[in-house]
Amino acid sequence: MSILKGAAVVGQSGGPTAAINATLAGVIKGAIENPEAITKLYGMRNGIEGFIGERICDLSEMFTSSYGVADEEKLSLLAATPAAALGSCRKKLPKPEDDKAFFENLISLFKKYDVRYFFYIGGNDSMDTVAKLTAYLKDCDYEMKVMGVPKTIDNDLAGTDHTPGFGSAAKYIAATVSEIIRDCAVYTVPAVTIVEIMGRDAGWLTASAGLPALLGRQAPDYIYLPEVPFSMSAFLDDVREALKKHPNVVIAVSEGVRDENGKYAGESAQSGVTDAFGHKYLSGTGKALEMAVKAEIGCKVRSIELNLPQRCAAHLQSATDIAESRGVGAAAVAAAVAGKTGCMMAMDRCEGEYAVEFNAKEIAGIANAVRSVPREMINEAGNYVTDECLKYIYPLVQGEMTNKYENGLPVHFVI
Amino acid sequence: MSILKGAAVVGQSGGPTAAINATLAGVIKGAIENPEAITKLYGMRNGIEGFIGERICDLSEMFTSSYGVADEEKLSLLAATPAAALGSCRKKLPKPEDDKAFFENLISLFKKYDVRYFFYIGGNDSMDTVAKLTAYLKDCDYEMKVMGVPKTIDNDLAGTDHTPGFGSAAKYIAATVSEIIRDCAVYTVPAVTIVEIMGRDAGWLTASAGLPALLGRQAPDYIYLPEVPFSMSAFLDDVREALKKHPNVVIAVSEGVRDENGKYAGESAQSGVTDAFGHKYLSGTGKALEMAVKAEIGCKVRSIELNLPQRCAAHLQSATDIAESRGVGAAAVAAAVAGKTGCMMAMDRCEGEYAVEFNAKEIAGIANAVRSVPREMINEAGNYVTDECLKYIYPLVQGEMTNKYENGLPVHFVI
Repeated sequence: MSILKGAAVVGQSGGPTAAINATLAGVIKGAIENPEAITKLYGMRNGIEGFIGERICDLSEMFTSSYGVADEEKLSLLAATPAAALGSCRKKLPKPEDDKAFFENLISLFKKYDVRYFFYIGGNDSMDTVAKLTAYLKDCDYEMKVMGVPKTIDNDLAGTDHTPGFGSAAKYIAATVSEIIRDCAVYTVPAVTIVEIMGRDAGWLTASAGLPALLGRQAPDYIYLPEVPFSMSAFLDDVREALKKHPNVVIAVSEGVRDENGKYAGESAQSGVTDAFGHKYLSGTGKALEMAVKAEIGCKVRSIELNLPQRCAAHLQSATDIAESRGVGAAAVAAAVAGKTGCMMAMDRCEGEYAVEFNAKEIAGIANAVRSVPREMINEAGNYVTDECLKYIYPLVQGEMTNKYENGLPVHFVI
Repeated sequence: MSILKGAAVVGQSGGPTAAINATLAGVIKGAIENPEAITKLYGMRNGIEGFIGERICDLSEMFTSSYGVADEEKLSLLAATPAAALGSCRKKLPKPEDDKAFFENLISLFKKYDVRYFFYIGGNDSMDTVAKLTAYLKDCDYEMKVMGVPKTIDNDLAGTDHTPGFGSAAKYIAATVSEIIRDCAVYTVPAVTIVEIMGRDAGWLTASAGLPALLGRQAPDYIYLPEVPFSMSAFLDDVREALKKHPNVVIAVSEGVRDENGKYAGESAQSGVTDAFGHKYLSGTGKALEMAVKAEIGCKVRSIELNLPQRCAAHLQSATDIAESRGVGAAAVAAAVAGKTGCMMAMDRCEGEYAVEFNAKEIAGIANAVRSVPREMINEAGNYVTDECLKYIYPLVQGEMTNKYENGLPVHFVI
């Protein structure tokens, strides 16, 4: 087999996670260690949007030590840095048939920098970019290997057992909700605490709040996911029931819970704004539930939105997630060098003791599909997840990192 | 000197912190190691309120190992557990002259359990309890040593250089705001992120968000404390100015900021409810600023309330804070055994290299005084803290704990 030789570009796209830079570190290491194929690795600043504006940087130079090998210290710092170090974008590519000029321009830029490898780290929308570029390249005489590398805290990508970034977010959520439960336990006055967790369509993150239950520790009283139609009256009945048992009721709820007609619980608090991909911008689900409890039950109640920290709390990364995130980045490079293209690098769970295998899978069929929590992983009443669900998440939060602190604060690597 | 001999009780009161159990661990260890004075240590469940209901537990038994010494493993687990393990209360004691019967009942309970030592861990309101009990005991023929042990994330207690619990909260806030800054930096669209931080009257916690600036790292663009009258129009001018320099503006604001007439910025979003001590219940300061930016500047804007995690994130304790929190608890026991009473155990900062000295100080004059951020630690414009302020906070966030994790989640000790 002849190896395609040229430069590579890597970009990050979509929402930040605590592990997306670990995947970038994996791609960088993979590129530096495959000099027979990759002559140089460029980073796109702010994803494909920045690349079009030729805002790129030389990652090979930045991460090669003076000994000519990958600089492990810098890579570790990068992996411990939250959010996309290269910057991100939310640009949706046109369809190749709709805007040929867009793709012609892109190809001319690839030619200008002799780019033969394209790595794009992101979620659903980023895989859409990979799919469109792949589709265009099929009828084009420019040879390039295009690989998607998954990333999303939402864990909602199809074709992979789970997504890099999810494990760290799940660990943060499980640990933080455990701490909130301890905080709420100190008073004897009946009180309801509602923790709103990210997840527009998929409830995986909210499900993670239940992890302590698997270990026989205190967990939220109820867990509501967007996969099951949300009923405010059933919710209020649940809260009344819980208050009969103990005074400190803690609820975990996905931001995306909605009723059987698709009306979001937080809809009243919404701006009606949608993002570039047409997703409704949500906020205030916890607040809406808080107001309902106050009005209908009348006890002390508060809502807590875990907000950005659940996706950027690199100080509480899962060691399993970080190892896998680095691994999947390096595996994407290896697969591309071996000739794969038009694929997403997926993680398949092995039988028996927990481990993953990295497998390149055709991007078509993966992009734009959403993997929700299956109904059978949610209890019949729709107000908790099953042990099977928790056992699926459990291995992904294992292990702690010993990230570098300097003068009392975590050190981040700024590109 | 003859040593007073009898049982001791310890209680926790007021809002939880990530270090109040470390102080409890210090008191427990101190009690176990002073058997010549303290025959047994009881824990009051839910503070003085629980003690009146005789809801107590035997901490000596719980924390003495089978070798007859303090069980260090259990004490470490306790110190790593957030929130008050004994439970808390917000009971305000009557004045001795107003309700003699209340105190007579209390003394009869002390006699019943042969309690000769009383340790109360808490903030301003708890020191008020210590002061009133001390005042009553002066004209009473029951000999008892009463000690207040400081705790509050707000760092607003008088008579002590800083308060146990503040350092861990400050570390969490500085680290989390750093992570939020990284998260916000990924997009190029102008956006304002407002981080609302606890602090009703004292801005110490919000000031901590500036710590990365002292290390030459990226910090919030502006910091607003309750100590300086807040002007919405000056704030909007600040934001406009920051947006000229870069697109990702991050603001740290105390929940308690108010205008020159004392009207809270978040007042519109308030319920008007006050707590048992007459404090106004605040919420929505960040939200109010978010709405002002949206209306007056019109760019992308969001607000994040750090909420409970800033006081219960034991997974990011400051090692300095935990060592001091344990130390001050043990020192309170030592002082009481040595005959001190009617005091709060304070921490005084030594000259030269950072260290603290534990000194017992008369409770009168400490209770009900609030120690705010001095005006000279805030810049002239009132929109940032000075380096002097950050240098004061800096040593308190130093050092990381290696708290125990089991199966991926932090382990808490539940009494």
